[in-house]
Amino acid sequence: SKTLKIAVVPGDGIGVEVMPYGVRCLQAVAQKFNLSLEFEHFNFASCDYYEKHGDMMPADWKEKLSKFDAIYFGAVGMPDQVPDNVSLWGSLLKFRREFDQYINLRPCRLMPGVKSPLAGRKPGDIDFWIVRENTEGEYSSVGGTMFEGTERETVIQETIMTRVGVDRVLRYAFDLAASRPRKKLTSATKSNGISITMPYWDSRVREMHKQFPDVAVEQYHIDILTAHFVQRPDSFDVVVGSNLFGDILSDLGPACTGTIGIAPSGNINPSGEFPSLFEPVHGSAPDIFGKGIANPVGMIWAGQMMLHHFGFTEAAAAMLSAIENVLARADLEIMTADMGGRGNTQSLGEAVEKEI
Amino acid sequence: SKTLKIAVVPGDGIGVEVMPYGVRCLQAVAQKFNLSLEFEHFNFASCDYYEKHGDMMPADWKEKLSKFDAIYFGAVGMPDQVPDNVSLWGSLLKFRREFDQYINLRPCRLMPGVKSPLAGRKPGDIDFWIVRENTEGEYSSVGGTMFEGTERETVIQETIMTRVGVDRVLRYAFDLAASRPRKKLTSATKSNGISITMPYWDSRVREMHKQFPDVAVEQYHIDILTAHFVQRPDSFDVVVGSNLFGDILSDLGPACTGTIGIAPSGNINPSGEFPSLFEPVHGSAPDIFGKGIANPVGMIWAGQMMLHHFGFTEAAAAMLSAIENVLARADLEIMTADMGGRGNTQSLGEAVEKEI
Ligand SMILES: CC(C)[C@H](C(=O)O)[C@@H](O)C(=O)O
Ligand SMILES: CC(C)[C@H](C(=O)O)[C@@H](O)C(=O)O
Repeated sequence: SKTLKIAVVPGDGIGVEVMPYGVRCLQAVAQKFNLSLEFEHFNFASCDYYEKHGDMMPADWKEKLSKFDAIYFGAVGMPDQVPDNVSLWGSLLKFRREFDQYINLRPCRLMPGVKSPLAGRKPGDIDFWIVRENTEGEYSSVGGTMFEGTERETVIQETIMTRVGVDRVLRYAFDLAASRPRKKLTSATKSNGISITMPYWDSRVREMHKQFPDVAVEQYHIDILTAHFVQRPDSFDVVVGSNLFGDILSDLGPACTGTIGIAPSGNINPSGEFPSLFEPVHGSAPDIFGKGIANPVGMIWAGQMMLHHFGFTEAAAAMLSAIENVLARADLEIMTADMGGRGNTQSLGEAVEKEI
Repeated sequence: SKTLKIAVVPGDGIGVEVMPYGVRCLQAVAQKFNLSLEFEHFNFASCDYYEKHGDMMPADWKEKLSKFDAIYFGAVGMPDQVPDNVSLWGSLLKFRREFDQYINLRPCRLMPGVKSPLAGRKPGDIDFWIVRENTEGEYSSVGGTMFEGTERETVIQETIMTRVGVDRVLRYAFDLAASRPRKKLTSATKSNGISITMPYWDSRVREMHKQFPDVAVEQYHIDILTAHFVQRPDSFDVVVGSNLFGDILSDLGPACTGTIGIAPSGNINPSGEFPSLFEPVHGSAPDIFGKGIANPVGMIWAGQMMLHHFGFTEAAAAMLSAIENVLARADLEIMTADMGGRGNTQSLGEAVEKEI
C-alpha cells in the first residue's frame, strides 16, 4: 500500500498545542491498520518565523511542500506580533490559492455527548456539509487607497468571481448533494444587496442545476440563512457559499453544534496536482493560547478527513468512531472547557488516542 | 406641538399586510397622547408598480418624499416578478443612499413571552443594539463583467469605504455605547481575509476609540462573531459593523431572540436634512405572503422607533409597553406562527392596538 507523505505545519497559538495530539492519533491509527504515514515538521508559516525572518515562509516554500501529498496544518495568526492580514496572506491563504485548493469542505454535525446551545437539539438532528469556495471571491488582494491620510480617504477592495472558479465549486457541491440520500443543496447568496457578483453566482447555480435535475436547490440571502441555521439546522444537507459566506457559515454551523473546537476542514485540490490541506476550523485563538486547554478534536478530526480523502476509509471510519465514543462518554474530567468540561488538551487528546 | 409628516410606503409582499396594523397602532397612540401625525400613502417602490411603469419609482420620487419627516416602509422584493437587485436598488437602497440615512439602528432584545431558540435564555438576557453602516461598503453598484458568456468570464464588484462614511457610523456607535451603563462596543471585522478594506475599518476604530476612552472596545472577525451571537448573546451591548456585516448580524441577532418577525429598524439621517426611514427587519417574505399570517410586531415596533427618534418619548414608551404586554401574555390564540401561535396578522395587530 502507498505511503502518505504529510507535511506537518503547526503554525501559531493553539495550533502548536493541538498538533501533537493530531499526529499521535494518526500514528496510532496507522499502526493499527498498518498504514504507511510519513511526517515531516516545518516551523515556518508562523508569526515567530516572521519575527526572525521578516517573512512568513522561506522563498522556496512551494518547492518544499509540493513534494507532500498533504499538509496537516494547525492555525496561523498572532495579531499582537504580526497583523492578521500579513500573517494569513503570507501562509494559509497562499496555500489555498497557490496549491489551488479550491474546495473548502467542512462537516457540521451535532455529536453525541456534546451539548448544543440550541434548545432541544439532539445528536443526529444536525448533520450537513458546508462547501466553501476557497480561492477567489471576497478574499482578493486587489484594491487600494486613494487620498490617503486625508478627509477624502477612499479605500477600495474588489470581489472577483470567475466562471471557472464558481462553476467548479458548484459542481463539487452538486455532486456531493447528489450522492446523499436527501439530495438537497442550499446556496447562500446576497443578490439583493451585492448587485453584481451575487446575481452572477445565482445564475451559475441555475445553469449547473440543469446538469443535476435530481438535486433540490434552495437559495437564501446570507442574512436570513444565518437565522435559519439557528432556527432549523436540521433542514440542511449540503450548503454551498462563496469564500466569505462559506467562512461565516462554517463558524456559525459548528457553534450551533456545541463548539467550533471540534470542527475540521479540508482544503482540497481535487485533481491532486498539488497537496491538499487539512486543518481545524478554530484558528490560533490567542485568547486561550498557553493554557493547554484548547480542544484537540478539531485537529484530530481534520486528520481523519485527510485519511478519508486519500482513500484509507477503514482507518478513517475507526478514527471517527474513536472521536464519537470519547465524546459520547461526556466525561467532564476529560472534556475541555469549551464543552463544559474540566479537562484539557492532553486529557482529551490522549483519550482519543487510547480509544483508537 | 409639531406635526410629524409620515410617508407610508407599504411596498411588496407581507409589507402590504403588516402596514395597516402599524398605522393603526400609531393612530391609537397619537390619539391617546394627542400627537399630530399626518399620513400619506404611496404605492410606488413595489414590484407591482414596476410591472406597470417599468421602474420602481416615478422620476420625481425624491421631490415627493423629501417633504416628509419620515418614511414608514414595509418591505420590497418579489423575485418572481422583478429580480431582487433591480427592485431593491430601485427603492430601499436608493432611499438609504440618496437620503443619506447612514445609520441603520436595530435593537436585539429577548422579549417576555417570546421563546428563544437558544437553550436557557430568558427575557433580559439578550438586550443590545446593532449599528450598521448603511450607505457604502460592500453594497456598491460599481463593477462589471469581462469576457461575458465565455469560459474566461470574470465578474468584479468593488467594496468602497470612505473615511467620512466609516468615521460617522463609528462615532454614532461610540456615542451610543458611551450613553449606556455597560459602555461596551463590539466591532465586526474580517481583516485577516478581507485584507484592504477591513484593516482600514479597524484602524478607524482604533482612531475613534481615542475620543471615547471610557468605552471598552472588543473586535471579532465576523465568522467567530456569529458563533458568539449564539453562544454568549448576553455579553453584547453595542455592536457595530459594515453594511454587509451589520446586515448579517441583524438577522442572526433577532433570530436568537426568537423571530426576526418582531425586529424593527431605523434608517437614520441624523442631521434631519432628509427623511429617515423606519421599517421591519423581515423583508417581503414571498413564501408566506397572501396568507395573512405575517407577524405585525416588527412593523409596529418600527413605528415606535420613529416616534422615539422624533422625541415623542412618552408615546414611544407607551407603545413599547403595549408590545411587551401583549407578547408577555404569550396567548397562543393571538400570537403568529413564527412565535408558535395559532393567531394571525390581524389578531396580533389588533391586540397591540387595543393594548395601546
Ligand atoms: C432587502 C435587503 C436589500 C436589505 C439589506 O440587505 O440591507 C435587508 O436585508 C435589510 O436588512 O434591510
Ligand atoms: C484565518 C482566516 C483567514 C480563515 C478564513 O477566513 O478563511 C479562517 O477563518 C478559516 O475559516 O479558515
